Amino acid sequence: MVSADDFFFRGLNIPGNTSNPQGSVVTFATVDQFPGLNTLGISLVRIDYAPYGLNAPHTHPLASEVLLAVEGTLYVGFVTSNPGDPNIKYKLFTKTLYPGDVFVFPQGLIHFQLNVGKNNAVAFAGLSSQNPGRITIANAVFGSDPPINIDVLTKAFQVDANVIKYLQGQF
Amino acid sequence: MVSADDFFFRGLNIPGNTSNPQGSVVTFATVDQFPGLNTLGISLVRIDYAPYGLNAPHTHPLASEVLLAVEGTLYVGFVTSNPGDPNIKYKLFTKTLYPGDVFVFPQGLIHFQLNVGKNNAVAFAGLSSQNPGRITIANAVFGSDPPINIDVLTKAFQVDANVIKYLQGQF
Amino acid sequence: MVSADDFFFRGLNIPGNTSNPQGSVVTFATVDQFPGLNTLGISLVRIDYAPYGLNAPHTHPLASEVLLAVEGTLYVGFVTSNPGDPNIKYKLFTKTLYPGDVFVFPQGLIHFQLNVGKNNAVAFAGLSSQNPGRITIANAVFGSDPPINIDVLTKAFQVDANVIKYLQGQF
Amino acid sequence: MVSADDFFFRGLNIPGNTSNPQGSVVTFATVDQFPGLNTLGISLVRIDYAPYGLNAPHTHPLASEVLLAVEGTLYVGFVTSNPGDPNIKYKLFTKTLYPGDVFVFPQGLIHFQLNVGKNNAVAFAGLSSQNPGRITIANAVFGSDPPINIDVLTKAFQVDANVIKYLQGQF
Amino acid sequence: MVSADDFFFRGLNIPGNTSNPQGSVVTFATVDQFPGLNTLGISLVRIDYAPYGLNAPHTHPLASEVLLAVEGTLYVGFVTSNPGDPNIKYKLFTKTLYPGDVFVFPQGLIHFQLNVGKNNAVAFAGLSSQNPGRITIANAVFGSDPPINIDVLTKAFQVDANVIKYLQGQF
Amino acid sequence: MVSADDFFFRGLNIPGNTSNPQGSVVTFATVDQFPGLNTLGISLVRIDYAPYGLNAPHTHPLASEVLLAVEGTLYVGFVTSNPGDPNIKYKLFTKTLYPGDVFVFPQGLIHFQLNVGKNNAVAFAGLSSQNPGRITIANAVFGSDPPINIDVLTKAFQVDANVIKYLQGQF
Repeated sequence: MVSADDFFFRGLNIPGNTSNPQGSVVTFATVDQFPGLNTLGISLVRIDYAPYGLNAPHTHPLASEVLLAVEGTLYVGFVTSNPGDPNIKYKLFTKTLYPGDVFVFPQGLIHFQLNVGKNNAVAFAGLSSQNPGRITIANAVFGSDPPINIDVLTKAFQVDANVIKYLQGQF
Repeated sequence: MVSADDFFFRGLNIPGNTSNPQGSVVTFATVDQFPGLNTLGISLVRIDYAPYGLNAPHTHPLASEVLLAVEGTLYVGFVTSNPGDPNIKYKLFTKTLYPGDVFVFPQGLIHFQLNVGKNNAVAFAGLSSQNPGRITIANAVFGSDPPINIDVLTKAFQVDANVIKYLQGQF
Repeated sequence: MVSADDFFFRGLNIPGNTSNPQGSVVTFATVDQFPGLNTLGISLVRIDYAPYGLNAPHTHPLASEVLLAVEGTLYVGFVTSNPGDPNIKYKLFTKTLYPGDVFVFPQGLIHFQLNVGKNNAVAFAGLSSQNPGRITIANAVFGSDPPINIDVLTKAFQVDANVIKYLQGQF
Repeated sequence: MVSADDFFFRGLNIPGNTSNPQGSVVTFATVDQFPGLNTLGISLVRIDYAPYGLNAPHTHPLASEVLLAVEGTLYVGFVTSNPGDPNIKYKLFTKTLYPGDVFVFPQGLIHFQLNVGKNNAVAFAGLSSQNPGRITIANAVFGSDPPINIDVLTKAFQVDANVIKYLQGQF
Repeated sequence: MVSADDFFFRGLNIPGNTSNPQGSVVTFATVDQFPGLNTLGISLVRIDYAPYGLNAPHTHPLASEVLLAVEGTLYVGFVTSNPGDPNIKYKLFTKTLYPGDVFVFPQGLIHFQLNVGKNNAVAFAGLSSQNPGRITIANAVFGSDPPINIDVLTKAFQVDANVIKYLQGQF
Repeated sequence: MVSADDFFFRGLNIPGNTSNPQGSVVTFATVDQFPGLNTLGISLVRIDYAPYGLNAPHTHPLASEVLLAVEGTLYVGFVTSNPGDPNIKYKLFTKTLYPGDVFVFPQGLIHFQLNVGKNNAVAFAGLSSQNPGRITIANAVFGSDPPINIDVLTKAFQVDANVIKYLQGQF
C-alpha cells in the first residue's frame, strides 16, 4: 500500500556535521534515502560548509546539478570536458556565489565549492537523476581500495613515486 | 565565447511579490531565464507564500518536482493518475511540511501547496527538465483564451451553465 | 513460452457503453489489458460518444495522443502549457473533426472531445506510451479520495466554499 | 504564429488507391505530412488492401506499431530478431485479424499484412515515432538504386545469379 | 559480490570458424555473453570472413553499428529507409574498406559486408546497445519457423510460387 | 547530397605517435572527425601505447566504453562511483588484458590502461555516444586554464601548497 510517507523525506533543515578534514558535508535526499524518487529522474541535496570548508572536486557520472547558495559566500567552479586532444587545455569556469545565486554543473564534469567567508555556508542542489552517484576525485584517485598502481599515478601526474606515496598516505 | 556567466543565475534570495489573489508567486530559474540549463535536464524555482497563500493545483507536463520547505508550514498534496476507469476514484496524497521537509510530485500529476501558517512561507524546488512547463488547472480550464466551450465545461463538471459562467468570470 | 496471442488484443470493434453522465466511454488497449505492449512505447484506444457526449478535459501525464475521427462530428481542443507567468493566458486550440480528420494532443496538455452531432461518434487514438495514464480534471480536482481541502479549491477557483461544495457534490 | 491547423491533418477517411501490384497502399500521417507531430513521438497511418492485397514484409527502423483491423480479414505476422546464431531459426508469429482486432509489431522487426478476404480491407496503425521510416524488404534488397552487388545476393539467398537477376528484374 | 571478472570478456582474438555457406562468422560480446554490459548501451563483435565470405544483409533492430576493417578488403554497404512511397527507390551506399577504414550502419538499416579479397578478412564493430539483436534478411524471410505464407512471399517478390519454394528450400 | 563518404572514416590502421610524456595516444573517430555519426549514439577510437605507455586516468562524461586489446599486454582498471559517503572507500577493479580480451568502463567512471609489456600495445574501443567527451583527471585538476585555486587543491588532496604547486608545475 502506497502512502504519502513514500513521497516524503525529512531533515534537510538540520546542519550537517562539518567536523571533518574537508570542513563540509553533503546530506542526501536521493533514491537510497528516499525510495519515492524511483523512476522520477530528480533528487536533492543539502551541503554545509564550515568556514573555509570545501566540497572537494568531484563528478556525478549520471546527473547535472543546479546549486543554490543560501548562506555564506561560495567560490564555485567546474572544468570542461574536451574531445581528448592533449594540446587543448581544460577550461575552468568559476564564480563567487552569494545567497540567492545559482550555478549549474553539467553532467559528468569536475566541480567544487569552497566557502570563502568567515561563517558557515549552506547550499541546496537539485540533480537530474534519482541516483546521481558521486566520485570525489582525490579520494577515488589516491584513496581507492585497493590503491591504483603507483606506476599509473606517477606517469599520470608526472611526478616521482615519493610524491604519489605521500598523496596516497593522506587517504 | 562561453563564460562563467552563462552558467550563473541571480536572484533566488529575493522574496517574490505575493500581493496577488493566490497569495503566492513562483520565481523561475528555468531555461527561459537561464539559458545555460539547455540540454541539462534540470531547473530550479523559488516559491513564496503569503500567510494562507496557495500555489494552486497545477501540473508540469514534462517534469517531476522535488520540493523543499525552508520557511513556514505548507500543506502539500498531489492527485494520482489512473488507467482511466471512471469507477476508480483518484487518490489524494497529502502531507504537512515544516522547514527541512521534502516532498516529491511525480511527472504530470496535479499538485498544490498551501501555506497553513500565520507567517510567510518559502520553498525551493528542483525539476527534472530545463523546460518543465506549467498548467495551472483553474486558469487553464476556466480562463483560457478563447474560453473552453461552455457545453464542454457544464458536462465535465456536471453543473449548469450559470455555475460555469460564474467560474469563468473569476479569470 | 511466447505465442502470437501475446501480441494480440480483441474487441475494439465493440461500441462502448455510453450510458453515463458524460455520454462517452474509452476502451483501452494499453499495457494493463494488453501485456505484449510492454517496453514498446505505444498503445491504442477506442472512444465512443453518444450524441452530445463528452470525453471530458483530461491529461495523459506520460504520452502524446494522435486521434482519428471515424464517425460523427467531434469538436476537439487542447490548452497550452506556459512558463508559469500568471499574466499570460493559456491558449486554447480547437477544431471540428469529421471522419478521417486527425488531431494531435501533445504530452501532458489538457484536452477534450465533444460530439457535436446528432448521432453517435467514434474515434481511435494512438498514444506514445504503453502506459499513458489518465487524469480527468474535474474528477481529480473535485472528486478525489479524500477530497482536496476546500481552502485549496476556494482559493484556486476564486469562489466561495458553497460553490466548491456544490461542485464536489457532483462527484 | 501557431494555430490549430498545425495540429490537424485531413484525409484518413479516403480509401487509398490499391491499383498496384501489391494491391495495398499506406496513407501516412507522419511528420513529413503533418509537421505538428514534431518531437511528439507518435504518428498514424491508414492501410487499404484490395482483395488479396498485401502490405509486403517491411520494417520500421525507429518505431513499434500497433495495428487495428477495421474492415475485412487480415492475416498478419512478424518474424523475431535473435542474437545472431545462424543455427537458431527465426520464429514467425501470425494471427488472422477481424474488425476490432489489434496486433503489435515490435520495433525493427519484419512484419506484413495480407488481405485474405474477398473484399477490401482497411486498418489503422499507431507508430511510436513521428518519423518511423519504412524499409520494404523485397524492394530494398532487390530494387535499390544502384542494385546490391549480385555476389552479395547470390550468397545471401544461396541461389545462382539467374535467380537473383530474375528477382531484381521485378523491381 | 561484484568482481573485475564481471566487466571482462575473453576470446575476440580467436578467428571464428568460417566453414559455412556464407563464409563468415560473427563472434559476439553482447549482454548474452557478457552480462557486465547490462544497462551500459554498448557491445562489441568480431567478424571473420573467408575469401569471398559474406556477412549477409541484415539489420539490428535496436542499434547503430560502427565497423572497423582490420584485415583484408571488404565491400560494405547499406540501404536507406524512406518514408514509404513505393515510387521512391531505396538508395544503396557502398564503399570498399581496407584495414583501418571505418563505416557506420545507422540503426535498423539493411547492411552487409563482402570479403572481396583473396585472403581472410577481419573486422571489429561497436554497437550502440548491449542487446542489438540481429535479423538476417534471407533467413528471416525464407527460412523462418514456421515459413512465411507463400502468398505473402510471391506477392512481395513478384515471382511465382516455384521461385519462392526454391528460395525457401535453401534455408 | 548525401554520399557514401559521409558514412566513411579512414586511418585507424595508422599507429598514433606515442612520443609524448604519457607514451600513449588516442586516435578518434567521433562526431568531430566523422560527422556521419551524428544522432547515431556510437563512436570508435584507436589507442596506441609505447612500452610502459599510459592512457591516464580519465572519464567520458557521456559514454560507456568497451575496450578490445589487440596487441601487447594492458593493465586496465576503473574506480567505482558511490553514493557520496566519505567513509565508504571507492573500489578499484583491475584486470590484465591480452590480445582478444575485452573490458568495459561504465559511463562517467575514472578508468585507465597501462602497457605493462616491453612492446607497443594497441587497443580499439567503442563508445556509446557520437560525442563521448574526455576529462583526463590529472590535466583537468592540475593543468586547467586558469588553474584551480590552490586552496581548493590543498584541501582536496590534504597536502600543503608546495606539493600542489609542484603538481601544477608538471602541466
